[in-house]
Amino acid sequence: MTRRRQIYEGKAKILYEGPEPGTLIQYFKDDATAFNAQKKGTINGKGVLNNRISEHIFTLLGMIGVPTHFIRRLNMREQLIRQVEIIPIEVVVRNVAAGSITKRLGIEEGTQLPRTIIEYYYKDDALGDPMVADEHIACFGWASQEEMHDIADMAIRVNDFMCGLFAGIGIRLVDFKLEFGRFFDGDYSRVILADEISPDGCRLWDMATGEKLDKDRFRQDLGGEVEAYQEIARRLGLLPEGETMVLDLDKHRKSKGK
Amino acid sequence: MTRRRQIYEGKAKILYEGPEPGTLIQYFKDDATAFNAQKKGTINGKGVLNNRISEHIFTLLGMIGVPTHFIRRLNMREQLIRQVEIIPIEVVVRNVAAGSITKRLGIEEGTQLPRTIIEYYYKDDALGDPMVADEHIACFGWASQEEMHDIADMAIRVNDFMCGLFAGIGIRLVDFKLEFGRFFDGDYSRVILADEISPDGCRLWDMATGEKLDKDRFRQDLGGEVEAYQEIARRLGLLPEGETMVLDLDKHRKSKGK
Repeated sequence: MTRRRQIYEGKAKILYEGPEPGTLIQYFKDDATAFNAQKKGTINGKGVLNNRISEHIFTLLGMIGVPTHFIRRLNMREQLIRQVEIIPIEVVVRNVAAGSITKRLGIEEGTQLPRTIIEYYYKDDALGDPMVADEHIACFGWASQEEMHDIADMAIRVNDFMCGLFAGIGIRLVDFKLEFGRFFDGDYSRVILADEISPDGCRLWDMATGEKLDKDRFRQDLGGEVEAYQEIARRLGLLPEGETMVLDLDKHRKSKGK
Repeated sequence: MTRRRQIYEGKAKILYEGPEPGTLIQYFKDDATAFNAQKKGTINGKGVLNNRISEHIFTLLGMIGVPTHFIRRLNMREQLIRQVEIIPIEVVVRNVAAGSITKRLGIEEGTQLPRTIIEYYYKDDALGDPMVADEHIACFGWASQEEMHDIADMAIRVNDFMCGLFAGIGIRLVDFKLEFGRFFDGDYSRVILADEISPDGCRLWDMATGEKLDKDRFRQDLGGEVEAYQEIARRLGLLPEGETMVLDLDKHRKSKGK
């Protein structure tokens, strides 16, 4: 196998040049980080599960008309995606108070919010991804007001769909993060959903027990991270009944210096 | 003089029951606080100057049709105001980067912003007045969307007017804070400008020298606080030529237990 050109390495994924212009290969690592990468670790098999879960959700979103960067899954850890220019805004949709909002606004974890909140965070590790408002995004030109309008519309549609999807499998969709990118088609560009949707960027609580089935298990040292991610995959019908282990057939995993 | 009923004591002002229903007396203290009251001090004569400066600006704003709570100044430290229900949002208008935004978004102090930014902070000392977006305000019902629309409109009008007012006296209006309140007229309520506009809540830089003529002198231990406030008053035509001292004829100042 020829060595592919690496375009970008993030905390949980690597992007490689794709087989044809305008495409990339998105590789899912097992690396886990939290609190702006102050906490680091590995969750064996996470990349395999997230690749599969994200494929599933992006495919379903495409079917209801939400445009995404997803083209197809290539193997256990890789998917082919459209190349986009990432908009440097993390879009957080909150249905229930958890995480940073509980401290910032003094709301008890688990409180159902009176209505869904969309928050925007400026993607900048050095600044700790500060929360921003439409005003800052417009001021610094991170996205146009038309793009932000499309993003807010899509975020609401994704939330509506995912609330239903997870309610159907006994899971409460507490909050989640989305990223969007500009897809260029000649001179014209439009905003499409990018990145991934997986338990790394969602808070997912079992409706019956309240058990956390997401990256908070890692953030809060609860243990059982991979089992939680597997439980999500299983309820989504992505793991055969009775299969309990994800084999880490990690042939493509690059050896890293650090 | 009969003892008036105190309604509220804030960091820099006290509100007393007014002479007739629907009115209050707003008393300006010399107390100065910064960094969410972690730093405390006194600027002798500040209350007298802020009372006069705020009277001047609120009167001018009233003349261009921005509704305010200001009725009339009563004496050196007090003004008669309309009673309102304060909306728990601090509205910050920024023309130039200074203060919290420089750290939060990594922008050098003094950078002219590509466009004016309006920020909202939830008034809650225990939480450190966290920044919020329209989404949070709508979610928790701190103000209706109609009220926020009126507030944003008024904030822009106040900024336009004050940029002109201060440019006319050689001062750059870097940023400032506004507060608004609901004024009830029977069953009907409308949002009007409340609180004060003074060097306590504005950043005002001399255009020629860049000198700071506002509360940053206190925050940053630059000294000369009262002289800076006097300079603002003098340029606004509120202090007679040659008068350099504000006599602290502080007859109404209440003696405080702490």
